[in-house]
Amino acid sequence: MNCMNIFNNNAFKCIGTGRLELALRKEYIDELKYIQRTIGFSYIRGHGLFSDDVGIYQEREEDGKRIVEYNFNYLDQIMDSFKELNIKPFLELDFMPEKLASGKETVFYWRGNITPPKYEKEWVKLVQVTLEHLLKRYGKAVLEWPVEVWNEPNLVNFWKNADKQEYFKFFEITFNAVKEVNKKFKVGGPAICGVNDKEWLQTFINFCEKEKLDIDFITRHFYTVNVVPTEGHYRYPKLRDLKESLEELETSRKIIDKSRYKNLPMYITEFSTSYSPDAPIHDTVHNAAYVADMLSKLGKTSEMYSYWTFGDVFEENGIPFTNFYGGFGLLARHCICKPTYWTFYFYKQLYKYLVEKTDNWVITKNEDNEYSGVIWNYKNEKEIGKDISILLPQVKGKYSVILKKISEKCGNPLLVWHGLGEPASLTKEEVKLLKDSAVPEITTKVVSDLKNSKIKVCPDSVVYFKMKKIHGSQDTGYSYSKLI
Amino acid sequence: MNCMNIFNNNAFKCIGTGRLELALRKEYIDELKYIQRTIGFSYIRGHGLFSDDVGIYQEREEDGKRIVEYNFNYLDQIMDSFKELNIKPFLELDFMPEKLASGKETVFYWRGNITPPKYEKEWVKLVQVTLEHLLKRYGKAVLEWPVEVWNEPNLVNFWKNADKQEYFKFFEITFNAVKEVNKKFKVGGPAICGVNDKEWLQTFINFCEKEKLDIDFITRHFYTVNVVPTEGHYRYPKLRDLKESLEELETSRKIIDKSRYKNLPMYITEFSTSYSPDAPIHDTVHNAAYVADMLSKLGKTSEMYSYWTFGDVFEENGIPFTNFYGGFGLLARHCICKPTYWTFYFYKQLYKYLVEKTDNWVITKNEDNEYSGVIWNYKNEKEIGKDISILLPQVKGKYSVILKKISEKCGNPLLVWHGLGEPASLTKEEVKLLKDSAVPEITTKVVSDLKNSKIKVCPDSVVYFKMKKIHGSQDTGYSYSKLI
Amino acid sequence: MNCMNIFNNNAFKCIGTGRLELALRKEYIDELKYIQRTIGFSYIRGHGLFSDDVGIYQEREEDGKRIVEYNFNYLDQIMDSFKELNIKPFLELDFMPEKLASGKETVFYWRGNITPPKYEKEWVKLVQVTLEHLLKRYGKAVLEWPVEVWNEPNLVNFWKNADKQEYFKFFEITFNAVKEVNKKFKVGGPAICGVNDKEWLQTFINFCEKEKLDIDFITRHFYTVNVVPTEGHYRYPKLRDLKESLEELETSRKIIDKSRYKNLPMYITEFSTSYSPDAPIHDTVHNAAYVADMLSKLGKTSEMYSYWTFGDVFEENGIPFTNFYGGFGLLARHCICKPTYWTFYFYKQLYKYLVEKTDNWVITKNEDNEYSGVIWNYKNEKEIGKDISILLPQVKGKYSVILKKISEKCGNPLLVWHGLGEPASLTKEEVKLLKDSAVPEITTKVVSDLKNSKIKVCPDSVVYFKMKKIHGSQDTGYSYSKLI
Amino acid sequence: MNCMNIFNNNAFKCIGTGRLELALRKEYIDELKYIQRTIGFSYIRGHGLFSDDVGIYQEREEDGKRIVEYNFNYLDQIMDSFKELNIKPFLELDFMPEKLASGKETVFYWRGNITPPKYEKEWVKLVQVTLEHLLKRYGKAVLEWPVEVWNEPNLVNFWKNADKQEYFKFFEITFNAVKEVNKKFKVGGPAICGVNDKEWLQTFINFCEKEKLDIDFITRHFYTVNVVPTEGHYRYPKLRDLKESLEELETSRKIIDKSRYKNLPMYITEFSTSYSPDAPIHDTVHNAAYVADMLSKLGKTSEMYSYWTFGDVFEENGIPFTNFYGGFGLLARHCICKPTYWTFYFYKQLYKYLVEKTDNWVITKNEDNEYSGVIWNYKNEKEIGKDISILLPQVKGKYSVILKKISEKCGNPLLVWHGLGEPASLTKEEVKLLKDSAVPEITTKVVSDLKNSKIKVCPDSVVYFKMKKIHGSQDTGYSYSKLI
Repeated sequence: MNCMNIFNNNAFKCIGTGRLELALRKEYIDELKYIQRTIGFSYIRGHGLFSDDVGIYQEREEDGKRIVEYNFNYLDQIMDSFKELNIKPFLELDFMPEKLASGKETVFYWRGNITPPKYEKEWVKLVQVTLEHLLKRYGKAVLEWPVEVWNEPNLVNFWKNADKQEYFKFFEITFNAVKEVNKKFKVGGPAICGVNDKEWLQTFINFCEKEKLDIDFITRHFYTVNVVPTEGHYRYPKLRDLKESLEELETSRKIIDKSRYKNLPMYITEFSTSYSPDAPIHDTVHNAAYVADMLSKLGKTSEMYSYWTFGDVFEENGIPFTNFYGGFGLLARHCICKPTYWTFYFYKQLYKYLVEKTDNWVITKNEDNEYSGVIWNYKNEKEIGKDISILLPQVKGKYSVILKKISEKCGNPLLVWHGLGEPASLTKEEVKLLKDSAVPEITTKVVSDLKNSKIKVCPDSVVYFKMKKIHGSQDTGYSYSKLI
Repeated sequence: MNCMNIFNNNAFKCIGTGRLELALRKEYIDELKYIQRTIGFSYIRGHGLFSDDVGIYQEREEDGKRIVEYNFNYLDQIMDSFKELNIKPFLELDFMPEKLASGKETVFYWRGNITPPKYEKEWVKLVQVTLEHLLKRYGKAVLEWPVEVWNEPNLVNFWKNADKQEYFKFFEITFNAVKEVNKKFKVGGPAICGVNDKEWLQTFINFCEKEKLDIDFITRHFYTVNVVPTEGHYRYPKLRDLKESLEELETSRKIIDKSRYKNLPMYITEFSTSYSPDAPIHDTVHNAAYVADMLSKLGKTSEMYSYWTFGDVFEENGIPFTNFYGGFGLLARHCICKPTYWTFYFYKQLYKYLVEKTDNWVITKNEDNEYSGVIWNYKNEKEIGKDISILLPQVKGKYSVILKKISEKCGNPLLVWHGLGEPASLTKEEVKLLKDSAVPEITTKVVSDLKNSKIKVCPDSVVYFKMKKIHGSQDTGYSYSKLI
Repeated sequence: MNCMNIFNNNAFKCIGTGRLELALRKEYIDELKYIQRTIGFSYIRGHGLFSDDVGIYQEREEDGKRIVEYNFNYLDQIMDSFKELNIKPFLELDFMPEKLASGKETVFYWRGNITPPKYEKEWVKLVQVTLEHLLKRYGKAVLEWPVEVWNEPNLVNFWKNADKQEYFKFFEITFNAVKEVNKKFKVGGPAICGVNDKEWLQTFINFCEKEKLDIDFITRHFYTVNVVPTEGHYRYPKLRDLKESLEELETSRKIIDKSRYKNLPMYITEFSTSYSPDAPIHDTVHNAAYVADMLSKLGKTSEMYSYWTFGDVFEENGIPFTNFYGGFGLLARHCICKPTYWTFYFYKQLYKYLVEKTDNWVITKNEDNEYSGVIWNYKNEKEIGKDISILLPQVKGKYSVILKKISEKCGNPLLVWHGLGEPASLTKEEVKLLKDSAVPEITTKVVSDLKNSKIKVCPDSVVYFKMKKIHGSQDTGYSYSKLI
Repeated sequence: MNCMNIFNNNAFKCIGTGRLELALRKEYIDELKYIQRTIGFSYIRGHGLFSDDVGIYQEREEDGKRIVEYNFNYLDQIMDSFKELNIKPFLELDFMPEKLASGKETVFYWRGNITPPKYEKEWVKLVQVTLEHLLKRYGKAVLEWPVEVWNEPNLVNFWKNADKQEYFKFFEITFNAVKEVNKKFKVGGPAICGVNDKEWLQTFINFCEKEKLDIDFITRHFYTVNVVPTEGHYRYPKLRDLKESLEELETSRKIIDKSRYKNLPMYITEFSTSYSPDAPIHDTVHNAAYVADMLSKLGKTSEMYSYWTFGDVFEENGIPFTNFYGGFGLLARHCICKPTYWTFYFYKQLYKYLVEKTDNWVITKNEDNEYSGVIWNYKNEKEIGKDISILLPQVKGKYSVILKKISEKCGNPLLVWHGLGEPASLTKEEVKLLKDSAVPEITTKVVSDLKNSKIKVCPDSVVYFKMKKIHGSQDTGYSYSKLI
């Protein structure tokens, strides 16, 4: 163990969001503000930049002529909000404005048009005018906003017929359009998910090599559940073995590294357990512990991995019926922290240097010999969970050990909501109760010259610990032991 | 048991505060705002209305003449704050402005002058001009602000020589001064504490009867600890038996009821366990449980009982050295809720009708057959504590049972602070940790047709429960049991 | 002149809003909060309660069967916001959910379906389930929310073919559906605008009389401009003579009063100058002065008149291109007060008793002989404007006269925006500048025993004045005249 | 004229404050927050760090022995607030804690003890323990906080007998005490005002040279009025000719530059017009215009000049009687901007490069050929004021010219308050009116290819202008001229 290794803690580079237009909503902004204030991500990525609800592309007829105009009112509102919340857009260029679309096919309840442009030139102009507008309004910082071309074109839901050649052509004209505005823009793709991904990635890279496109990064998605049917409004998938699942990413990495794009960054522009916005597993401690495992391992192959999504303001499958509907978010509606929120929160408190990493914990330290760590434990399908046990770092001198725990019994608002009778619309009082319950259990103690001190961690739980040096002494005459 | 009895829940009529000038402080206002938003009291009572730091009475010389002026700048600031926070002053008329005082004796680190006025007429004018100013600025609502004459004149610390006759005379001129401004003002005294209280109260009442003063209420204080010496900056008194202590109040009540002032309201204008602002017991769960017992019993003799005090912005013994210094407050500095805060919070959630009251719990209900209750359990000196057990009300139909618990292990920031090494000045991070830890443990569950369901409550803890009817049904396809 | 007349100041009973779904937006809520905090209206009325973006009516297929569900998630969010902002909904029942609609016709950019229901029973159930849900969530207060059936059915844009008989039938089943939930609901219609209004109102009343419907109020709209074509994105209509225009309302009043519905309240559920959301006149001082005239006169015939609308978050004609796009709002985007905002603000400061009302001013007073008034002056098409002159009330004693003025030169952010070069998207700095400029000019002076004091008011301006008694005297030694 | 000169705009390096304990007040913090948010200063300097109300030095007796303790509770609160408001303390070491003082002499209503320490060692320890505490709590940033030894020792009010030798000795031990903690601390003095200043400065420098003290900066104060007696609570001094007054500073500069401390920075640690906290001139536009003149000229001799003070929370002469009492502040109570606030605000908006500086204006520009300037005009005693006239910079292309003006008639809350009858305690409504009136008049216009365009500026006024390039064009069909 070399304690001066640096821990690849890339989980905070990007976070997912529901379609961009939702950023006009009050609830969305309240939640993103909470996330940014308490955790803090660098970039945010969502669908629908060019969809009609954002409304950039406008066409009207005057005297029989088609007049195209660009309306940046809502785009500016959205980008202003992001700026104010200190988060930068990871630009995903889609979907097709209705009047510019070559077909009628749409995806989602909110009808994102998934067809190629009717007029290529108009698409190119739309992309360019938009980027130029952003450059004018927000300055050169915009050049640091990555640009990704479309979303999951390997699925028929997202790209008409999942037509590979059509996508490649589209990628190329879009890539060139962006670079024409400014060479410094970083552009990438193909934003595929895990369906037929090897072949897609290989052909995409072949295409780029052939066309000599100097792409800047490769993007793909990562989900880890089996496919299950809907029951009523919900889905109950099971988690796959994480190590097996991660092989997908290693394969992608290898494909890239065998090409001229060797060492190009690979960004996981979406990841979570389930890919469905109606899977209650997202709201559980089980999910939190599994994601803790993911966060310890994803840095191995990927420079960035963007959890899908920060909050539950989301409409892909329609308007949710209840407050805990199995949405993707770290936050449930009303800013209630789900257990997985705490996984991210805990990881954010880790120090720079890696001390130890196992399948159940990560321990880090800072330059002052203070420690922090995350410990997780989740049940496999096959077995009943067991407690795990971890030895705290041995230290000399006086330390305070701070523990924060999330488990079935604490930091689990889903259980509290269940115990309230699963109300669909919450009263103010219920919101307060759920928020008050959605916090880790906290314990502290003073230790001296620590040796052989163990912490037990029960199944389906996540524990954060911190060991902080104690300076100063007790106040004259103060004695806690006289009080108990 | 007649379930339509009303529970005398008088704990929220008034709350104590450090000297009035402290209401100019930011921290004070932040804390009072928190208290009012989350609990809510009707009146607030503190010392020092006429002290020089509030600065109403101003004297200067011009051409050899004494010119008296009145400066309402700070008074208005303080009263404006109270108004904005929806709390009304319970006016306590003291201490003596230095230039109006007949002697040099003072009380407290902040030097409140405790001597009678040098010129009676100037005192009368000061009182009257002040009340008239308040009436002009705040309107007739001011007539609902009770007026109490001085504080604890039965102690030599607070009233020069604890001179009874001098106080009675002072009371009379002050009483008349107030009534002359407006008969509708409610005026009372003698604001004594438990030292020599029987004799003081009896003589005071004799005096008022003789002088035919139509006083509007009687005030006294109530503390329940033994006397102990200081150890360094602190004191560690023990709690007296509550039932024995309460006899003091019953005796007072009887003295009143044997006079012409029969049935006049008795206000406990100060109460707590210890009367010292340096007693760490104030910060404990032990205190919280004992105060829960007090709140169930004080309504028997008293129309109002004002806990001393809402927060720890306080300087009677000097500037506190640490964040948990044994101050009187419900809140420790930085708005950290002490356990006793939760006792008040829980009592505030009780319903109107009394179902059952014992030495360990109060159960109430509302008109919809929903229940709420407070349960407490504290260790006596003589014995090690034991768990107690309470039978929940039997109900038909589907209910959610909500429990909130404060104990040594939860809702106890003092222990967390101790485990941090008792830091004097807190960092932002420590403040957050302490606040996050200062919350009750919350559990909920759904029950149907409840019978024989018991709750166990451990020593030195306070538990709140609520039984709320469940309306509505689960969402299509939702099943919590599929998730665990 | 009888100074104890009460001035019918009904302008604050209701205010219009863009479609209800917009109430999920942050900007909308910020603006409504501003309006409520600074002016304060009792009710709010907008279109689209049943439109698909609010999403109450949900239909899906399961095993070949149509399953109808109701989703109150967004409705609750919207109503919670209104409650928090202390404004109650004036319920307007429309438009038709797509899956319940009998046709494809829509109105507006946002496609409100304007066709009658495919299944009458489902419509009735939708109305009833919704009202029952509201009653359960918000209690009996909901019975005070007026219910209006549809919007402007006399226009083909809003009701398929403007089919009168179809509307009457629809009105009747809806009316009965509401009353079946609770008789105490107040229900009315026909919400017509000024096109063919006499005939529509007369036939509607005949129908209600024949069917013996105990309707609770009559509703209509009121706009006062000529019809003009679009120029680019805008329209530049001219204002009609107000007195002539008001005859429409008097005619309506007479039609009502000749029927069995004599004295039934008439509510103007929409009024403004132009009925187009792209008429820059809405943003001018000219509009403000004309509306001041309206507010002095509308109380004569109508118990309520609801200005259309409070803000510029609005999409009927599409997404606005600039910050001053001629929207209906009292506020331009970014909470910038348009001149007409101040007309409402000034009227809100009027006292209870009417002293004098002319074609150019209203003067009121309170019980303490203090005065407040609004004075307006606007250019007619025919003439260049002239100054007007008004005599202030004669008073004895010392008063402070406070004047606030809006004119071309002050309180006119449109001119400031014009002077900035009419930027489409505002920078933060520009927003601040515009807000800072959007305030009245303020002057004060002290007067004694006022006689023959006149104020001059220039064309296209609105002036508010207040005459307030002065109590108290100058501070010892203070002299303003020594400073200038 | 070389337009690439840089304008010495040093007015924002430091700002004065009432005694440090006042920073515990809510009103103080509200006002400082406003100042920092809207203007922004780097450092803040005030008296009383070691006074008993901050309470660092604590002495008690135990078993007959003197025990010294240090209490950093309030110090930490104050410094935490400054840190949160992004302002750093300029440490002024005074006054003497009562128990450490050698005498009883005090200054101000709040009784700062002005005598040398009883025990030198205890003083040295107090200084060192305090600095070490700050270093521990706030880290190395503390080394950037300048340290100044005492305040105005050349006055008998501030330093017992104004005893020079005593001060020099005190300076030396204090200087050494600070440097012993950390050599990197910057330490300076002698913080003298303009009484007998030449001699004091010369002797101080001689002393430092002789003792070989490597002092880091020289400090002095600067006020520009004649001496006048009090009238009631107020003083009405006249302004001295600024150029003559500035000779004081030039003389100081020369004394320094002739010594071994040549080129050492000279800091004006206090400046204003009047040195009295009861001079209504502070609240006038006259003051604002004169200070504008000062801000253009002080950079010539001084690296820093700290306006005394940011706000009117101040008690040196006692508790103020009214809201406009002639206090030093940029803000009057209730965050009402005085005219001089705008002088600072306008100067803060200046660009980097100096274009032109006269006795009546400063014009600056940025790298994009955009301009901003401040213009002032004030009446001399001798003459009635005259308008002045300034030629705007000639520019090519389309610009927006933005003007903001403060004069007797606009941005002058003192006049509005006078017109309200000079109320002592303001109602909420009056506060709002005064705040609404305390803003500059704003005008904008679009110009093209500007030549020979002049602005007239009336006496006792300050005008800010900005010339900003216009990008973009009008929206399709928009025409302002159709609206007027």
